[in-house]
Amino acid sequence: MRNIKLLIEYDGTDFYGWQKQKSGRTVCGTIEEAIKKLVNEEVELIGCSRTDSGVHAKGFVASFKTNSKIPSEKFREAINQKLPDDVVILESEEVLEDFHPRYQAKGKTYCYTIINRRAPKAIGRNYSCVVKEKLNVEKMQEACKLFVGTHDFKAFKSTGSSVKTTVRTIWDIKIEKNYDEIKIYVSGDGFLYNMVRIIVGTLLQVGEGKIKPEYINDIINEGDRNKAGKCMPAMGLSLEKVFY
Amino acid sequence: MRNIKLLIEYDGTDFYGWQKQKSGRTVCGTIEEAIKKLVNEEVELIGCSRTDSGVHAKGFVASFKTNSKIPSEKFREAINQKLPDDVVILESEEVLEDFHPRYQAKGKTYCYTIINRRAPKAIGRNYSCVVKEKLNVEKMQEACKLFVGTHDFKAFKSTGSSVKTTVRTIWDIKIEKNYDEIKIYVSGDGFLYNMVRIIVGTLLQVGEGKIKPEYINDIINEGDRNKAGKCMPAMGLSLEKVFY
Repeated sequence: MRNIKLLIEYDGTDFYGWQKQKSGRTVCGTIEEAIKKLVNEEVELIGCSRTDSGVHAKGFVASFKTNSKIPSEKFREAINQKLPDDVVILESEEVLEDFHPRYQAKGKTYCYTIINRRAPKAIGRNYSCVVKEKLNVEKMQEACKLFVGTHDFKAFKSTGSSVKTTVRTIWDIKIEKNYDEIKIYVSGDGFLYNMVRIIVGTLLQVGEGKIKPEYINDIINEGDRNKAGKCMPAMGLSLEKVFY
Repeated sequence: MRNIKLLIEYDGTDFYGWQKQKSGRTVCGTIEEAIKKLVNEEVELIGCSRTDSGVHAKGFVASFKTNSKIPSEKFREAINQKLPDDVVILESEEVLEDFHPRYQAKGKTYCYTIINRRAPKAIGRNYSCVVKEKLNVEKMQEACKLFVGTHDFKAFKSTGSSVKTTVRTIWDIKIEKNYDEIKIYVSGDGFLYNMVRIIVGTLLQVGEGKIKPEYINDIINEGDRNKAGKCMPAMGLSLEKVFY
């Protein structure tokens, strides 16, 4: 069978996340239905990760196997014609049969968007989180560096997922500020449940002056979830890119 | 009576524009209702302009007269508490009684956002318009210069509005490109009905190579609506700033 890889963008606002569930509209379920209509056979769409309800993606990767003879680059437009407007296939290509979007992912970049101002936000309110307290971005940038490297990130993991190890490697955390918009890009080889949203919550404590940048080392070393910041809302998070 | 000036942001997606109508949800009507609940008196909210259904605003200006004793800067938060999440008061201040948001406006800046790529857009799809044909931004920038100045813009006006004169002054048109996002900022002393959206439609003809930049002069001189480009969809347009 042919193995087709898809690059996908979606607005997570009206989805119950990526992963199919017994009930509720999911990204995986929605795309699978569109593909089935197109190829007239059962397909199983495999994703690079699970994103939570409300989380967005600009570069999600998934793949499915098919006997269809549709040219690989034509899948993009053909599937898009059967999709609702909050999910879009950006690229489609045929890959080796053993390609697996999750097992072969070497890492990912997530982006968390904060609007730092007093007033709530109307435009783009589903794609960012408003933080009212004035943030010291320089201090946040100092703190970013302390996350980089291979560490046990168990302080930055929500309960409700079982993993063999809580050691992960963060390659880079980068902050871009443009007027009142602050984008935090987190790249690494893998992420624990809610890890990015808790890292951002902790960086905000630094930005608000509640903790010093150096304290990040202590939180990592102590491994106590209660020492880290809160888990930020899903709407601010987007999966930007998956590396293979 | 006190005269309170408001700076307003709204997501125009689910509004039938600014101006109150017999039926349909409007920005003006929505904010007026919120203010009435707050001050317990009849108020009339006067806006700086009418925006069409689906058009957004980051810096709309409106004012209302009231006998309320609420401190002027407190109106912002008090009104926000009574507003739905697609409209936000950014600032409130007391101004001279003769301040009029429309008559005293010296000019405005609008922004039109284009996404230049093959695939449709899921994230932020209500705030931009996708153009599939590869655009030559340099040529568009050349064309921008020819709009600047005082001209009769009757070729760039939709029917359905009566005005004394179709002469307007464009101060500046600026294009910012960031990956596949192209933002066109148009500033001037006043705008005819759909003028910005038709200017953008005409710039796109230049960007797609259908007309040469110099042809802008001919369109302006001939004053023929059929020579100008199409009126671009409302969703890409945002009122950025009003000058007084």
